[in-house]
Amino acid sequence: MESWNDPRLTKQMAFLVEADKLKNVLRRTLLTDGSRRENSAEHSWHIGLLALTLHEYAAEPKPDLGHAIRLLLVHDLVEIDAGDTFAYDEQGYSDKEEREKAAARRIFGLLPDDQTDSYLALWREFEEGRTPEALFANAVDRLHPLLNNFATEGYSWKQNGVLRSQVRARMQPIRDAAPKLAAFVDELLQRAVDRGFLADRPQPEGG
Amino acid sequence: MESWNDPRLTKQMAFLVEADKLKNVLRRTLLTDGSRRENSAEHSWHIGLLALTLHEYAAEPKPDLGHAIRLLLVHDLVEIDAGDTFAYDEQGYSDKEEREKAAARRIFGLLPDDQTDSYLALWREFEEGRTPEALFANAVDRLHPLLNNFATEGYSWKQNGVLRSQVRARMQPIRDAAPKLAAFVDELLQRAVDRGFLADRPQPEGG
Ligand SMILES: [Ca+2]
Repeated sequence: MESWNDPRLTKQMAFLVEADKLKNVLRRTLLTDGSRRENSAEHSWHIGLLALTLHEYAAEPKPDLGHAIRLLLVHDLVEIDAGDTFAYDEQGYSDKEEREKAAARRIFGLLPDDQTDSYLALWREFEEGRTPEALFANAVDRLHPLLNNFATEGYSWKQNGVLRSQVRARMQPIRDAAPKLAAFVDELLQRAVDRGFLADRPQPEGG
Repeated sequence: MESWNDPRLTKQMAFLVEADKLKNVLRRTLLTDGSRRENSAEHSWHIGLLALTLHEYAAEPKPDLGHAIRLLLVHDLVEIDAGDTFAYDEQGYSDKEEREKAAARRIFGLLPDDQTDSYLALWREFEEGRTPEALFANAVDRLHPLLNNFATEGYSWKQNGVLRSQVRARMQPIRDAAPKLAAFVDELLQRAVDRGFLADRPQPEGG
């Protein structure tokens, strides 16, 4: 690690350079043009933009937008160590919490102590999903891959044999945090099923 | 464009899907691991994280962090049409303003009218760089590529024959917006010159 004159700035810069690795963490979804897999850093930017653009649909009590975006900027950093766990991967989910906790300690631990604490608090707030900001942030985080999947004719749904019922269950946070967006989700999923992007029931094996 | 039941949401979703294209706009800098060029979407995320992490160094009057991050999330979207103009490309800069204005009108014009206006206002505020938030946002936007260039032994400086004097001039917004970060910049540039990552300026005029 490069050491600078100011010890506090040295730690902050080490953290900011480490964060660069999130650009190499690939998600299951493709970009909407289908050209390549999306990485978690550009996803984090995009959900910030979703939060900004769709904030009017957040349920009461209205989340503070600035704080919701802070949660979104920070919450995926743990994937640098823990990787992106696919939403419908039950095995991956069994130890997800432990892996991400260790990652959060290491990565946010690069910062000066007071910031380690505040970033860990942001990360935990998002994970616990109880504050209005965390509820709304979770909602846009779940909504985002639907746009990619719809645009790419269900690429990651098909790749992984995901069913509409699973997607609907995964979108539950949207129902609570932004009911109007939940109606949009239902409309999108219906079209996805109608067009053959998403299976409504398990496909017969061996066809 | 996909049309949904709700006309307002149709426009918002068209904008959010269009925004995906920022992930295909490549900058001159490499990722810090040197593996590939950085794209403008992941850069936009990273400068949001810089703003969050380095906000304590912002000069008085302290910028509102949430608003500064909103400026950062939005300001690069014009590059979808206008491309990323390299900071030290004087030719590219001659028509940058016109190209970006047209881009802003088209891209933010996808949104419902009230949001077209507010996103155009955010974009202009960043470009004009007069509010405390715009000053600070510009500062972190300029600081970011220094970290990439330092980590990659001056890759885009060398590729483009950039001199320390040019980089220092480009970093002027940091001097005004966050003097303590300006001291860090000077330290980094000195090391870059010492290690041969960056060419020092020739003897100044009159010498
Ligand atoms: Ca920029």
